[in-house]
Amino acid sequence: MTLIVQKYGGTSIGTVERIQAVAKKIVKAKQAGLDIVVAVSAMSGETNRLINLAREISASPCARELDVVVSTGEQVTIGLLSLAIKELGVEAVSYTGSQVRILTDDAHGKARIQEIDAKNISQDLQQGRVVVVAGFQGVNNNGSITTLGRGGSDTTAVALAAALSAKECQIYTDVDGVYTTDPRVVERARRLDRITFEEMLEMASLGSKVLQIRAVEFAGKYGVPLRVLSSFEDGPGTLISAEEDGSMEKPVISGIAFNRDEAKLTLRGVPDTPGIASQIIGPIGDANIEVDMIVQNVGEDQSNDFTFTVHRSEYDKAVGVLNGVAKQIKAKEVVTDNRIAKVSIVGVGMRSHAGVASTMFRALANESINIQMISTSEIKISVVIEEKYLELAVRTLHTAFGLDMDGTG
Amino acid sequence: MTLIVQKYGGTSIGTVERIQAVAKKIVKAKQAGLDIVVAVSAMSGETNRLINLAREISASPCARELDVVVSTGEQVTIGLLSLAIKELGVEAVSYTGSQVRILTDDAHGKARIQEIDAKNISQDLQQGRVVVVAGFQGVNNNGSITTLGRGGSDTTAVALAAALSAKECQIYTDVDGVYTTDPRVVERARRLDRITFEEMLEMASLGSKVLQIRAVEFAGKYGVPLRVLSSFEDGPGTLISAEEDGSMEKPVISGIAFNRDEAKLTLRGVPDTPGIASQIIGPIGDANIEVDMIVQNVGEDQSNDFTFTVHRSEYDKAVGVLNGVAKQIKAKEVVTDNRIAKVSIVGVGMRSHAGVASTMFRALANESINIQMISTSEIKISVVIEEKYLELAVRTLHTAFGLDMDGTG
Repeated sequence: MTLIVQKYGGTSIGTVERIQAVAKKIVKAKQAGLDIVVAVSAMSGETNRLINLAREISASPCARELDVVVSTGEQVTIGLLSLAIKELGVEAVSYTGSQVRILTDDAHGKARIQEIDAKNISQDLQQGRVVVVAGFQGVNNNGSITTLGRGGSDTTAVALAAALSAKECQIYTDVDGVYTTDPRVVERARRLDRITFEEMLEMASLGSKVLQIRAVEFAGKYGVPLRVLSSFEDGPGTLISAEEDGSMEKPVISGIAFNRDEAKLTLRGVPDTPGIASQIIGPIGDANIEVDMIVQNVGEDQSNDFTFTVHRSEYDKAVGVLNGVAKQIKAKEVVTDNRIAKVSIVGVGMRSHAGVASTMFRALANESINIQMISTSEIKISVVIEEKYLELAVRTLHTAFGLDMDGTG
Repeated sequence: MTLIVQKYGGTSIGTVERIQAVAKKIVKAKQAGLDIVVAVSAMSGETNRLINLAREISASPCARELDVVVSTGEQVTIGLLSLAIKELGVEAVSYTGSQVRILTDDAHGKARIQEIDAKNISQDLQQGRVVVVAGFQGVNNNGSITTLGRGGSDTTAVALAAALSAKECQIYTDVDGVYTTDPRVVERARRLDRITFEEMLEMASLGSKVLQIRAVEFAGKYGVPLRVLSSFEDGPGTLISAEEDGSMEKPVISGIAFNRDEAKLTLRGVPDTPGIASQIIGPIGDANIEVDMIVQNVGEDQSNDFTFTVHRSEYDKAVGVLNGVAKQIKAKEVVTDNRIAKVSIVGVGMRSHAGVASTMFRALANESINIQMISTSEIKISVVIEEKYLELAVRTLHTAFGLDMDGTG
């Protein structure tokens, strides 16, 4: 029998009625001849309610005990969903993370899955049961309950799919798939039928609204095909999988990602000596500030301009650290800007297509959008521009790379 | 170190503030030099909320899955209470029934404890931790979560006390102990300092409001001293323990129990032949009706009157069954009465004191209260009277056996 792992998140199962609707979806798949394992989150709002209860008692609750409290959210859902499936005449059985046994490390609140014992689940499947597993949770070597951190249910689903060699891991959400870009910015954005793991990871700024990046990494690592679908309406969704060699002509660019969460810091007149980059970035890292893009240009007078971006919420902190660094290494000046945006084009096609970068730069130039920074990876080109041009830039690139919806582009 | 097991029920821990108050009580005992293991129920209202969620989905939910859902109630409490204890600077650790491992049989919803593994708890106690255990739940041999049924947290506490050889099992409730009778009926009722297990069991109709009978049986069987205390105010409570031989002069009667939940059925003119009692009571039992008192008198004409009582809610059903029986065994007539009450005097002292019954009957006669049925056990005498005399009878007996509060009796 073909095995599918399905995952339903909080809004998909936010009420008793929604749980019943999900049960119908599952039973339909089961009756179509599939073996089904389901991973579920807590009913929407429940995890926050439980965390707030704990925080009323302790401002910084012990992570082990917080996991004991929070993990009950999914436990309620697995029981209720199993009941709903059984009401429809199909046998079902629930498992907590500990019952499966989803073994994790000891990092309460952000544990990592180390091993899944698939024995019990396999037996239940053989006996025709739907198996409903609590997402987001596991158990450590001491038998303490652990949680995987927010969005960990996606990871549970992928890990189950890998352990059970499932044909596909289906993530049901409140959107019907992954889009070429954010439809709120570009009306003509369209759902992608397929995208590769790497592209999905590079589309992080879009994708994170749909899927946990960690789950995508996990799926990529174990080669588990992932499908994002709507739990509210039928449709094929978007399949995220490994690249198929020459299966069909791929579009050059799969999507346009963007964000306006970053700020830019530049150190001008940095002495061109070995080790200078680490002298700049070291203290930033020591201050627990994450750096995204880094660009270094050699200037005319044997000195460098060194530019990097950080999350906008850490802008002030980063400026403080950088001013200290500037004095120490005798840089000329610090120039900063927190009104920037980052736009990226993503596509495995650019590996085999020349001229992608120049198409991008020309399209932006035609709209008189100035590029402040450029950074490239194998399947992504990112530019930093003035924030006010963000929407225009995304729409322009969406059209330039032929991503607009049929009949309208 | 002296080990005490404490149990806190739903109203004792109904809110975050109550949980914090209970944590203070526990920490106080711990700082007084005691080792403490705590068993807790779900926060009040939580178990019903969870059951209702399940019933919204299924009218008769699968017992295994219902236990998965319902057992989360205590799991939340153990986490929160552990956090509250830690906030007060005392180390604490929580265990679900499955984590302890409280092994039960497979009877979901009314499971019986078979074995408790005390290893982990003992280690934690040695390291100075307060151990907080989820009451009401266990795990069966397959690793499925089971629940012990309503009030099962008392049983968990007693079982833990037995497994850990605790000095005492303290049940914290919303009353400050066991009373000679219901204070709402007799103003001069007073709290008992001590009562034996057997007396407590015979006082069931009073005691069941305070303690689960099953927990008392369990405590008696394993010789675990039980103490009932208020979780809202300080006080010594009532100690329920084995009889101490000649430790001090015991009162003849410890308390007056009563109920008005029963109805009386009489079969007149029953042929006096062997096996006739089972021909009458058999069909009642087959109809799942529980019988309380049974009395049989030999009449003048070689025929018997056979009388028994059932719970009032099963009165109609019992009358129906009995009419059928009457025809079959050719009894003269069926006479029934559901306006009765049962009053019992309870005390181990009656074993060694003569004249207890006659004191009881004379006291009732002095108030012109007619006795309809009498039933005796080693430490209890019960009478059935007309319901309207109930309060008068209880007050009269309370005074007659010297139970009234000092200075007022």
